[in-house]
Amino acid sequence: MKINEQRLKERMDIINGIAVSEDDGMMRLALTDADRQARDLLKQWMLELGMEVRIDDMGSMYGYLPGTDPDALPVCSGSHMDTQPNGGKYDGFFGVMAALEAVCSIKDAGIQTKSPLVVVNWTNEEGARFKPPMIASGVVAGNFTKEFAYGIEDIDGVKLGDALATIGYVGEESNRLTKAKAMVEAHIEQGPVLEAENLEFGVVNAVLGITGLNVTVIGEADHAGPSPMKMRKDSLMTASEIMLAVEEYITNYGDPIVATMGVISVEPASSNIIPGVTKFTIDMRHYTNEGLTEIEDEIIKIINRLAEKRGCKCEIGRYWRADPVYFDEKVVDAVERAAKNHGVTYRRMTSGAGHDSVFISSIIPTGMMFIPSIGGKSHCPQEHSRFEDIVTGTEILADVLLDLDKA
Amino acid sequence: MKINEQRLKERMDIINGIAVSEDDGMMRLALTDADRQARDLLKQWMLELGMEVRIDDMGSMYGYLPGTDPDALPVCSGSHMDTQPNGGKYDGFFGVMAALEAVCSIKDAGIQTKSPLVVVNWTNEEGARFKPPMIASGVVAGNFTKEFAYGIEDIDGVKLGDALATIGYVGEESNRLTKAKAMVEAHIEQGPVLEAENLEFGVVNAVLGITGLNVTVIGEADHAGPSPMKMRKDSLMTASEIMLAVEEYITNYGDPIVATMGVISVEPASSNIIPGVTKFTIDMRHYTNEGLTEIEDEIIKIINRLAEKRGCKCEIGRYWRADPVYFDEKVVDAVERAAKNHGVTYRRMTSGAGHDSVFISSIIPTGMMFIPSIGGKSHCPQEHSRFEDIVTGTEILADVLLDLDKA
Repeated sequence: MKINEQRLKERMDIINGIAVSEDDGMMRLALTDADRQARDLLKQWMLELGMEVRIDDMGSMYGYLPGTDPDALPVCSGSHMDTQPNGGKYDGFFGVMAALEAVCSIKDAGIQTKSPLVVVNWTNEEGARFKPPMIASGVVAGNFTKEFAYGIEDIDGVKLGDALATIGYVGEESNRLTKAKAMVEAHIEQGPVLEAENLEFGVVNAVLGITGLNVTVIGEADHAGPSPMKMRKDSLMTASEIMLAVEEYITNYGDPIVATMGVISVEPASSNIIPGVTKFTIDMRHYTNEGLTEIEDEIIKIINRLAEKRGCKCEIGRYWRADPVYFDEKVVDAVERAAKNHGVTYRRMTSGAGHDSVFISSIIPTGMMFIPSIGGKSHCPQEHSRFEDIVTGTEILADVLLDLDKA
Repeated sequence: MKINEQRLKERMDIINGIAVSEDDGMMRLALTDADRQARDLLKQWMLELGMEVRIDDMGSMYGYLPGTDPDALPVCSGSHMDTQPNGGKYDGFFGVMAALEAVCSIKDAGIQTKSPLVVVNWTNEEGARFKPPMIASGVVAGNFTKEFAYGIEDIDGVKLGDALATIGYVGEESNRLTKAKAMVEAHIEQGPVLEAENLEFGVVNAVLGITGLNVTVIGEADHAGPSPMKMRKDSLMTASEIMLAVEEYITNYGDPIVATMGVISVEPASSNIIPGVTKFTIDMRHYTNEGLTEIEDEIIKIINRLAEKRGCKCEIGRYWRADPVYFDEKVVDAVERAAKNHGVTYRRMTSGAGHDSVFISSIIPTGMMFIPSIGGKSHCPQEHSRFEDIVTGTEILADVLLDLDKA
């Protein structure tokens, strides 16, 4: 299905021209005035397309284009428009604009679907202004209550509920998308795999589960000068050995399993004192629960063994656990079929990052598709996807919507 | 020379009973009211001993007991009474009280020296309240100007000059100790060597020189989920490899050479983002300038090689360089002679930590002596030296003063 490339490009450029920050990055934090301006434009384009625009109580937006069968459940697509601070131009936003353009192009081609086609913009996916992320899709799927969500405060103490009201996007709870025939979310990969393997497209069949550990290594703080190397209980050296051993274990385990030590701190943090305490985080991801348990167990063994070797104590706590998510096979197959028909090079793959589809997949048959991220970058001004890949992804998405409508 | 153990113990207990903090630690920061109370007691005991008490413009205190030769230069001993926050009971304080007790005991024994005997309490050795450390001995030795020292502010913006006036310890510049026959500083080891080698005493002949490097490793920040392990440029993993390689190199180099990574930080410091930038410090110490240059060169090679191996860039800057200090051979020999005559087990050794004697040694023939630190601890409530070692150290110090007087 051909799309209107120029319309897609113009619309993306208009919204990405609103809140430009450092180094040409995007500053479209959830429920700010920049987000409101983007929402107002999306609403206007939905109305121009002849859609009915519904807003739910979390501010998520749904543009409904009626189908021929009044009883048919809708076929949906979308993502989010909020960004990280000084974030990129494509994360989330591509998925909303691709859905809008796909439906526009289907209508332009004179095709009438049986199911309503719905374009979705989820509120606050990033969690950059209001934590946790994916809050609106989480409320819809029953993972969070509305009361909890409304009470979340940003760094200035502004409540999410009040921010929604300020920008005029408090809608009806009855508008929540709780039933649909299918949901398919187009997204940038946010990783380097497609580019590295010289592929044009990714068929996403699962999202990795996550276990997050807080590790505290307790050695002995001592004077940097008078403490011979062999008599030290240096918590930072112990932590370094642990982190490298975790890296080696996970690298040998093989893709797409990953482990990341993203935060580290030492006490007392003085250049002439041996660190008595070192704290760090381990974020580990696997596509099965059994695998997640297996790597967590092995990593805990590594920590204990290496801490003991150096005469240090350690404390290990879990700060996060999220099960892996497997997408609906019928939706995944529809995405793969469309990719094959389009003649692109593609692979089936997992998503390492979380998305609104993770929560939505528990109530609606859901799938995802990726277009390549140049250099694997995201959440930064360098985030980039080639326009030809954006067009290809949007064309495939249109085909997927038509396929799911027929199924 | 026997000393009055009970008097020494009582006086130490009185001052260490003044500003007790958490876990029985000491909170006698420089020029606070706790410091004033300790100074007032020291002054009282000096006067009771028949000393003339002089205060210089940096607030350092000198108790002069006249000798028989009015033209003889003084033989001096002392250290400092200020502590780290929640510090220990012996660091510095032992050296002042040992000097006072040694002179008291010499007088009690009816011995009259040719040289005046001088007991010294240097202001702000720790640098805990006013940075840099060893400020008063540094001014006396010409390393800092008085104007610079007076202008240094504590964390609340109080200037050192004003703090001196507040506690009533601004004296005359003409009272500075700029000429003396010898200075000998007794101190706790602050390291574990004497205890580990089952020795009672240390004859200190040098203080290690220091080179301090700031290292910045620049990799690439990426999403923890979608970035395969083998495609990462993880600055923290690179830094870990560098730090362990530095540790291995220095450990193999052999005692007393040391290197310490005391401070580390990562950016962006988020548990689900690969650290793009890691910064850490390396404090390296050697007893010769050539050795210091040699280990610095090798460590820089290690940093560059391992950063390159992992595709990271690095920036290296020096934040500190202090030459090694060799103490006066005559003073060191006098200390060793006294130790031998006393029949203690001892060794010649270097000091890894800085002391007022480092600066003073540039203007006065200087030496140091160590008593064992249990567990090598200092700057914390667990800092401890056995009272029998304190007595032994004080007795040896008295003998050293008499020896230096005769020399």
